[in-house]
Amino acid sequence: MDGEMAKEIERKFLVINDSWRDCVTSATAMRQAYLSVNHDRSIRVRTSNDETAKLTVKFGKTALVRDEFEYDIPFEDAVEMISFAVGSVIEKVRYTVEIGGFTWEIDVFEGAFQGLVIAEVEMRSEDDRPMLPHWLGREVTGDRRYSNQALATERLKPEVVHAVSN
Amino acid sequence: MDGEMAKEIERKFLVINDSWRDCVTSATAMRQAYLSVNHDRSIRVRTSNDETAKLTVKFGKTALVRDEFEYDIPFEDAVEMISFAVGSVIEKVRYTVEIGGFTWEIDVFEGAFQGLVIAEVEMRSEDDRPMLPHWLGREVTGDRRYSNQALATERLKPEVVHAVSN
Repeated sequence: MDGEMAKEIERKFLVINDSWRDCVTSATAMRQAYLSVNHDRSIRVRTSNDETAKLTVKFGKTALVRDEFEYDIPFEDAVEMISFAVGSVIEKVRYTVEIGGFTWEIDVFEGAFQGLVIAEVEMRSEDDRPMLPHWLGREVTGDRRYSNQALATERLKPEVVHAVSN
Repeated sequence: MDGEMAKEIERKFLVINDSWRDCVTSATAMRQAYLSVNHDRSIRVRTSNDETAKLTVKFGKTALVRDEFEYDIPFEDAVEMISFAVGSVIEKVRYTVEIGGFTWEIDVFEGAFQGLVIAEVEMRSEDDRPMLPHWLGREVTGDRRYSNQALATERLKPEVVHAVSN
């Protein structure tokens, strides 16, 4: 079984420069789309490196802790389902960086969201205090405008995408 | 991979008596719920015999032909997701009967929908003409009140459930 149930606990920041690039341990090109978005749940499909794909069901209103169910699905299924996207298809490259025992994911957006770079760290509990590297800008944890779901399904807000350079 | 993409082509009827029970080849107790229902798509979770489970994503407005993606998921995931049901949880026993090279599925509903019995035959093409056994009543193909989705997510209509006996 590929299923996985997880509580997501994470903090999210804008990224103000490129110095994290020296420490990258992996890079994955992602395309993702939402199949359904309701007030307390979303269904997302995502391809990675044009090879693998996952279907993810998320429940819960708060960004900090949510129920998440994720399944590997055939890549070809994902490509077809992405054609049924609600809103925009998100294209980004996700880089990972390891700092002080925590894994940071840095999403560099392309296409309509070019210019937007967001870093996320996943914590084991809400009490974790990961070290915050100097290339982080403003914290946007809980600011739903910076969720992939809001980017994909709500009207594009240029001030969100270009928040770093302003 | 457990994924499966299929075009569904089927006809659906009410059932007017129990004579099909002599020919049953399988029986499966099912619980199912919808996680999301939008105008042209639905996401459903279903358990079978309290052992296995599937997650199904359907696209398309017409009942006769739809795109369907279905994945095996862990039973425990399904139980938890069913707690997030939109509308009612449907409980039914699905029996199968083989007639003239076609498989009929007879759903005997329980709980809130007790009294409702629906037979469906899946066809290989829209030109197929399966023999119609004498225990069939009114055809309800395309009558969306008899879809599991409508039963689960719309207000219960007693005239639908008790259509046979009236």
